[in-house]
Amino acid sequence: MQYINGGVCAPKGFKASGIHCGIRKNKTKRDLALIVSDCKASAAAIYTLNLVKGAPIYVTKDNISDGFAQAMVCNSGNANTCNADGVEIATKMCEITAKAAGIDAKDVIVASTGVIGQPLDITPIADGMPQLVSELSYDNSINAAEAIMTTDTVKKEFAVNFTLGGKECKMGGIAKGSGMIHPNMATMLVFITTDAAISSELLHKALYSDAQKSFNMISIDGDTSTNDMVSVMANGMAGNEIITEENEDFEVFTKALAMITEKLCRAIAKDGEGATKLVECFVSGGKDWHTAKTVAKSVICSSLFKAAMFGADANWGRVLCAIGYSGADVDVTKIDVSFTSEKGTIEVCKDGAGIPFSEEKAKEILLCDEIKVNVNLKDGNADAVARGCDLTYDYVKINGDYRT
Amino acid sequence: MQYINGGVCAPKGFKASGIHCGIRKNKTKRDLALIVSDCKASAAAIYTLNLVKGAPIYVTKDNISDGFAQAMVCNSGNANTCNADGVEIATKMCEITAKAAGIDAKDVIVASTGVIGQPLDITPIADGMPQLVSELSYDNSINAAEAIMTTDTVKKEFAVNFTLGGKECKMGGIAKGSGMIHPNMATMLVFITTDAAISSELLHKALYSDAQKSFNMISIDGDTSTNDMVSVMANGMAGNEIITEENEDFEVFTKALAMITEKLCRAIAKDGEGATKLVECFVSGGKDWHTAKTVAKSVICSSLFKAAMFGADANWGRVLCAIGYSGADVDVTKIDVSFTSEKGTIEVCKDGAGIPFSEEKAKEILLCDEIKVNVNLKDGNADAVARGCDLTYDYVKINGDYRT
Repeated sequence: MQYINGGVCAPKGFKASGIHCGIRKNKTKRDLALIVSDCKASAAAIYTLNLVKGAPIYVTKDNISDGFAQAMVCNSGNANTCNADGVEIATKMCEITAKAAGIDAKDVIVASTGVIGQPLDITPIADGMPQLVSELSYDNSINAAEAIMTTDTVKKEFAVNFTLGGKECKMGGIAKGSGMIHPNMATMLVFITTDAAISSELLHKALYSDAQKSFNMISIDGDTSTNDMVSVMANGMAGNEIITEENEDFEVFTKALAMITEKLCRAIAKDGEGATKLVECFVSGGKDWHTAKTVAKSVICSSLFKAAMFGADANWGRVLCAIGYSGADVDVTKIDVSFTSEKGTIEVCKDGAGIPFSEEKAKEILLCDEIKVNVNLKDGNADAVARGCDLTYDYVKINGDYRT
Repeated sequence: MQYINGGVCAPKGFKASGIHCGIRKNKTKRDLALIVSDCKASAAAIYTLNLVKGAPIYVTKDNISDGFAQAMVCNSGNANTCNADGVEIATKMCEITAKAAGIDAKDVIVASTGVIGQPLDITPIADGMPQLVSELSYDNSINAAEAIMTTDTVKKEFAVNFTLGGKECKMGGIAKGSGMIHPNMATMLVFITTDAAISSELLHKALYSDAQKSFNMISIDGDTSTNDMVSVMANGMAGNEIITEENEDFEVFTKALAMITEKLCRAIAKDGEGATKLVECFVSGGKDWHTAKTVAKSVICSSLFKAAMFGADANWGRVLCAIGYSGADVDVTKIDVSFTSEKGTIEVCKDGAGIPFSEEKAKEILLCDEIKVNVNLKDGNADAVARGCDLTYDYVKINGDYRT
């Protein structure tokens, strides 16, 4: 099992494209993405738990209620959320896509991302659809990955290969992240494709279970988006025996999925709005997964800790503070804390109290662009990882004037 | 009942002082505060729920377990938290204070605020105590208010007068706020004095009940401090009949307390770290207090909403987003949102969807330094107010390098 190129087009039978259709004013920014499978695929998705949901969420839920889909269409620049005609517009997006691609409108997964509460004009989407479909190709994941970006600064696409019953299978994914990222059951927008054959039920089970340890453990800013969705299509074109139970093949499939989602999560966290670095909190020694998870997420979500990481300040007091208010049942007098990066590891807190350390060495470690904060609760064997980024001037700049 | 001058020295029989003793390197910053009552006073306090608690919290809890106190001593520049010898040092602070002031060490409320995890040296406190006591005066609240400041930019002191059974009573309070402010049961550091006579039990009841609607509804950055404490001493020198039950006098007393705490809360929120403006979320039409409170706090805590307020951007989608993920059970299709400042009011969202509004007028309103965001849930009669501030470049700057 290893990483390969090709993104969502790496698996057999998936074409993709991405164009500028005019939703965004900036003509150099693609704003409409399409992924189409050569045949109907098992489909599954998980969604935001925000009570305010983007209209596309409702339409996608309905469309894949039968467990199948054949295309994913997504615009950036407008979330189609809190609009009176939202569901109507999202439904039209599916119809226009289906007609142009020669598939059933009920087999379209639809998504929108961007500003909330501004009516989404269907005209540029309708006008751009012929070009979008004509540019579909088996080697064009990159344009789709670009078209779903909002304040993202880098495109996020990954693929892996794996073997099921002697058949080579592939899986690919693209994501948009950046801001309003604090997933709860689902997250930002992620589209995953695979040519492995798997039933819709098992596909959903694999996706849901993976998300608890991947997407649901990221936080950029504590804000759970209205439009979060992770969707996956499995078209079976690899020719493996279809996975319909939790057997060895299912294990292999979930490992491949975890390889994709971990890469996407790290990329999303590192490219958080205004971020200068990826920050990961590795918690070990928890008495159970819930405790370890709660501690890891509380540290990653702390504005004070995030600002300290921006300043490369080994302010471990803020780590302990965030653990203390997390709600997790821990013995704070047992906690060890250290920081790790490519420059090494430095221990800063033992048994809940400070220990002498070299500020110079700590600075050197924390000036790197990928930081791990290691928390050992010394109370059991459970561990968890949460991912986020630092809090910077640019986060404030980007969000101080996002709409205008 | 009206606001008067004098802070914690406004009530009869309270002296205060504040000096630079050397905990802080900057010699122009006072770092040690003392408030002493001429006689023993009923005392009550509420504390942070953070599992990591400053050592002074434990010592104060023990000292006022009998319901009485006579002095409050507080240093800034060091939180005396996560130190192996913390309780020992906090106990010594009480002993040194008591000896110099001629009172019982068990009658001292002790507090510390500043950086976590650095041993607190007792030497400058011991050396400074003679000066601190010699400068005690009935008209020196201002120096005590200054000495408890950390990253605060303005001192926070208020006082009111009121009448109980024909006797004039007074109440005063000082606070430090700024960062790591997201109180849970208690908050930052607040010291309140009154010359009204009230039993310790009723004093605690009044304080606890008030905090639910005042201090517990502030958030600067979502981080619940390790050292939060609100304490109050009532020395009875006004000569009113002691309040021992929830009668009319108790009502008057709680009103006076609410007048002090509301002023302190608004001052703390407006002076949040890096803040350029006070932001208050007024929620009405909630089906119950819990719902209204949850909605108000979620809006005030949203980093995206706070950044939008900094940019004077009427991005009401972020208000709806924060309501949607708050966990409150609301009908999002009923919600109205408007913004108010001294420049007027502008409605931006009706029944959960956007309405046309003048961006120019919205900008004018949001450029003021005190903003109200009004949320009507149209689902009942409960209301709630939460207070916070905007998220700014300076918040990041202050916290990117706090220790060094």
